[in-house]
Amino acid sequence: MAQQHLESSEAYGTDAVLGAHLRNRATDFLRALRQHRESGAAGDTADAARALRRAARRISGTLHTFRPLLDAEWSDALRPELAWLSGTLAHEHAYGDRLARLAEALHRLTTSTVAPPAQRAEPGTPAAPPGRETLALGAAKAAALLDRQLTLARTRAHSTALQALGSSRFHAVADSVAVLASEVPLSGADAPLDRFAAEAEARLTEAVAGLGGRPPYSQYDSGSDTPWHHVRLLLRLHRYALEVVPGPPADAVRLSSAAHALNAHRDAAEAAAAASQAARTPRIAPPTAYALGVLHADQRHQVEAAREAFLDAWRREPVSTP
Amino acid sequence: MAQQHLESSEAYGTDAVLGAHLRNRATDFLRALRQHRESGAAGDTADAARALRRAARRISGTLHTFRPLLDAEWSDALRPELAWLSGTLAHEHAYGDRLARLAEALHRLTTSTVAPPAQRAEPGTPAAPPGRETLALGAAKAAALLDRQLTLARTRAHSTALQALGSSRFHAVADSVAVLASEVPLSGADAPLDRFAAEAEARLTEAVAGLGGRPPYSQYDSGSDTPWHHVRLLLRLHRYALEVVPGPPADAVRLSSAAHALNAHRDAAEAAAAASQAARTPRIAPPTAYALGVLHADQRHQVEAAREAFLDAWRREPVSTP
Repeated sequence: MAQQHLESSEAYGTDAVLGAHLRNRATDFLRALRQHRESGAAGDTADAARALRRAARRISGTLHTFRPLLDAEWSDALRPELAWLSGTLAHEHAYGDRLARLAEALHRLTTSTVAPPAQRAEPGTPAAPPGRETLALGAAKAAALLDRQLTLARTRAHSTALQALGSSRFHAVADSVAVLASEVPLSGADAPLDRFAAEAEARLTEAVAGLGGRPPYSQYDSGSDTPWHHVRLLLRLHRYALEVVPGPPADAVRLSSAAHALNAHRDAAEAAAAASQAARTPRIAPPTAYALGVLHADQRHQVEAAREAFLDAWRREPVSTP
Repeated sequence: MAQQHLESSEAYGTDAVLGAHLRNRATDFLRALRQHRESGAAGDTADAARALRRAARRISGTLHTFRPLLDAEWSDALRPELAWLSGTLAHEHAYGDRLARLAEALHRLTTSTVAPPAQRAEPGTPAAPPGRETLALGAAKAAALLDRQLTLARTRAHSTALQALGSSRFHAVADSVAVLASEVPLSGADAPLDRFAAEAEARLTEAVAGLGGRPPYSQYDSGSDTPWHHVRLLLRLHRYALEVVPGPPADAVRLSSAAHALNAHRDAAEAAAAASQAARTPRIAPPTAYALGVLHADQRHQVEAAREAFLDAWRREPVSTP
């Protein structure tokens, strides 16, 4: 296929490389959309929705980073629509993941895998230490409460996504992407792709530098998450730009670890908020609230751990592949 | 003074060194007891009680480590009495410390020191993120509940300590220590002090080695604390033995850091249990239970951090002082 030739060749110039990349992502989008329509099993639908989101995010990111090379009016109109689409499709998946994450955490918090010999040997020792007993009381109810709340949210998100995919707003997006698959509206500006990719990297580097030297904060304060979420978006844009203008392959591993850590950061922060939200349900029993408090703190500690993991990955020297 | 000469000299032999050490600690005990009786201000009383506990622990530890060199019947009778005394005197202080620790933690959990500019700038953003709001609701009540419970426990411990110090059981201990200050009942066995000190160190090293390679556990399970508490006691015995048979001075810093970490481990574990205990108070409000859950998890995370800190200190090479 002509597109494949174009994609791997820089000899065709800036316009050709960018054009080929966008056409390929548009093709990915249309293929995912066809899969989604033809899929019967829920698993296939989820896979197709993921591929659709993946393509939409990449198109949107590329339009953002290389904006001056593209028709501004067209790209400024399409970007928010792609963001709306990928956001809408992401919710169902996110609620499901959040529920799984919180259920796993509650299970971990209340499951003992060590029975110390010293305690076992002593007669008259209570079967479980007081901390875990209190926790076990509420954990089952907390799990049921979260299951109810997040399953409901997920079901609603599913309906919203289905409605979105049947809407005229979605059909307009799909039509725009179909045009993009054959013809990319370039601005005709003459500037090297590298410059825009370097600018995306510089924005990321600056934002990461801003993370350090922040005043001390309470780790239970989700207000401190915002700059990290922002870095997550800038890192994504940087990685998408590298798909157009490849960097050293060794660095990809480092950036992938960093992105993984920031995804975990976002997931833990949202899970902590869900636990906290559930604790505000009227008329819950105190042990349920207690378990949700433990869960909230547990997830906030994972937020902390994810920040450490990100900074570790970020500071790591790229491993040179021999 | 003759005792000071004896203490710093190994030329006088095993009996003389051990005898001088025990006489000096007995003198410390009697001085602290006199201070305690003469003290008027609460601060002075607390200082004297601390010195009394300190001396009692050292005498007891020395009797334990160097047992074969001492009159067995006498030492086996005195050791549990010294343990009873230092245990009884420790409680009041421990409840006070625990309350301060938990109050500080609750304050930290609910105090925001960062107001992210992004959130501040956006109009319509709620003043506090949902997590902190829920927490703030219950934190004040949780603090009041813990204050009530731990102050009551502290007052009771104070009365118990006062009763203990006026009891005939205590007077018998004080009499034994007074005798010890002038004459140490040695067994007459001929063995080098180093051997017993080395045995104390070996017991500690073995116990520390046993901490690694344990099966995975839930960090909320206080059952996993037991071997660490045991290492704390063995480390104390090792350090007390080094006061009789000095090791390399550089190692003292390492051992002091390790001991500090295990004290923090014990304090955090007991604070977590107190939070959990408070959550079982009948008829508390759900937000109070929620805050206690967060507090429990926070202290259990500090238990984890203290374990890491201990292992770091333990593995550290002794810094050689030039």
